[in-house]
Amino acid sequence: MAIPVLRPFTSIAYSTSRDLQLISSTDSPTLCSVHKPKRLVCCATPSVSNHVGSEVGVRLSVGTHFIPHPDKVEKGGEDAFFISSHSGGVLGVADGVSGWAEKDVNPALFSRELMANASSFVEDEEVNYDPRSLIRKAHAATSSIGSATVVVAMLEMNGILKIASVGDCGVKVIRKGQVAFSTSPQEHYFDCPYQLSSEAVGQTFLDATVTTVELMEEDTVVMGSDGLFDNVFDREIVSVVSSCDNVSDAAKALANLAHNHSKDSSFDSPYSQEARSQGFDVPWWKKIMGMKLTGGKLDDITVIVGQVTSSLSS
Amino acid sequence: MAIPVLRPFTSIAYSTSRDLQLISSTDSPTLCSVHKPKRLVCCATPSVSNHVGSEVGVRLSVGTHFIPHPDKVEKGGEDAFFISSHSGGVLGVADGVSGWAEKDVNPALFSRELMANASSFVEDEEVNYDPRSLIRKAHAATSSIGSATVVVAMLEMNGILKIASVGDCGVKVIRKGQVAFSTSPQEHYFDCPYQLSSEAVGQTFLDATVTTVELMEEDTVVMGSDGLFDNVFDREIVSVVSSCDNVSDAAKALANLAHNHSKDSSFDSPYSQEARSQGFDVPWWKKIMGMKLTGGKLDDITVIVGQVTSSLSS
Repeated sequence: MAIPVLRPFTSIAYSTSRDLQLISSTDSPTLCSVHKPKRLVCCATPSVSNHVGSEVGVRLSVGTHFIPHPDKVEKGGEDAFFISSHSGGVLGVADGVSGWAEKDVNPALFSRELMANASSFVEDEEVNYDPRSLIRKAHAATSSIGSATVVVAMLEMNGILKIASVGDCGVKVIRKGQVAFSTSPQEHYFDCPYQLSSEAVGQTFLDATVTTVELMEEDTVVMGSDGLFDNVFDREIVSVVSSCDNVSDAAKALANLAHNHSKDSSFDSPYSQEARSQGFDVPWWKKIMGMKLTGGKLDDITVIVGQVTSSLSS
Repeated sequence: MAIPVLRPFTSIAYSTSRDLQLISSTDSPTLCSVHKPKRLVCCATPSVSNHVGSEVGVRLSVGTHFIPHPDKVEKGGEDAFFISSHSGGVLGVADGVSGWAEKDVNPALFSRELMANASSFVEDEEVNYDPRSLIRKAHAATSSIGSATVVVAMLEMNGILKIASVGDCGVKVIRKGQVAFSTSPQEHYFDCPYQLSSEAVGQTFLDATVTTVELMEEDTVVMGSDGLFDNVFDREIVSVVSSCDNVSDAAKALANLAHNHSKDSSFDSPYSQEARSQGFDVPWWKKIMGMKLTGGKLDDITVIVGQVTSSLSS
């Protein structure tokens, strides 16, 4: 790739996939190496759901799950994410671009610091509940070398979910058994997403796609890194969400499904379909034997599932 | 289909596909059977582009093209649409549900009246520049028997495009050679979309998915009935938009591409892919011979293409 590109955030290493829980720095300060760990999700804990959102109106009940790339288990992968209880709830995922490893840079540092900064600026006056401004401030405050894709979603108490995204992390809204809303990934070319960077060559908040969707009670918000969306089809996301009793189970089931597909070389994944649609495929002599490019994409997999509920009090 | 469902609006019959132009009732009052034809697109004229949007800020330069279902050419099809110059521009498409023909109801009447009403309420104080409110008022004022899918998009001068959609008409935003935003279709089951109806069994404005996307200068907005999106892939829409010099050419090229694909029984269209993903396919004995369900979908095809430009004056 011409532009070194990175992926997800967790500041500790863990060797198996486990649910991740919203914690504060005071809950578990030693688990967070990032310098502004407030409201950061950064460690493995038993599966739980968290209500994020603290005023009267709608809020999100959130479950999370992270599974690192099989080759990155010891270092905890390169995805990063945070959830916050501000207003109706704030969610963010960043995916450190792995190409930086070739330059002896840990691809996780940029995404982790970016999410730590985003988490710390959630209530900032300048941000004023605008996810693009939050990305701007978080990026400006990030001093690590590297780059990352990022998506941030902020739920207002009136049910409006405002989303800013740079790259191929994404958000989907599931309503009444179907996908009601999806973000669209941005890429320079196949497998090289738009990305915030420490270098001038990267994108900025100005390149973010900014969208809103009016949520309804009982909607489910699914946010993830491309490790989820490259390996799991929309219909599967809908099916999993419908079959799970709670957000933690849904996040875990989605991450596990993505993980299983990512390791399945015969699975005709969204990733392999997209590759073929862009002209990548097996050699011609395999094609005439009826073969085609298939397989999931090994990657860090971050999943945040939020259920919209009404809130009568904090 | 359990629920009779309808499709597009033109109030005159024409036998070949031609570009449709924004006209007012004073321009060509006899061409419009709808009772509030102000700002309605309703007749075949030479290809043109129109600037819709009348204040300082951003506005849309719009081109349109409509091709009726081959079996519905004489009656002008069942799609309907309008464009308005209010604020940054307002676009709407409705698709009369063809199932009503089985009940001896002209499926075009509901969609035409719905779009006529929507057009007349664009500047209504109660609507207050909210596309869902516009759908609510237009639906309430529609007395024809029938039903239709509908999408309405209203561009504010600050660049925010607000969209409300019931069913499988859609909007895409093309930015820098890729799809930056897409609406998601709503359906009860395969080929039976959510729809506004004259009957209590149908959907209402409350079922609309409401989204916004912040447009940038040079973005291209593509709105259409499912006749476009069932027959043309995103990558083809991007390619056509990129290759055309103006919005009228783009609308015409997209509609022609959709029309050609719709008649091609060997084309593996978005429609046939969706059908297969939902379990519809050729019989098993054809499958073991390597055959699969393919083909476009014969349908009315409405395309509206809007280019975002800055506006220094009206």
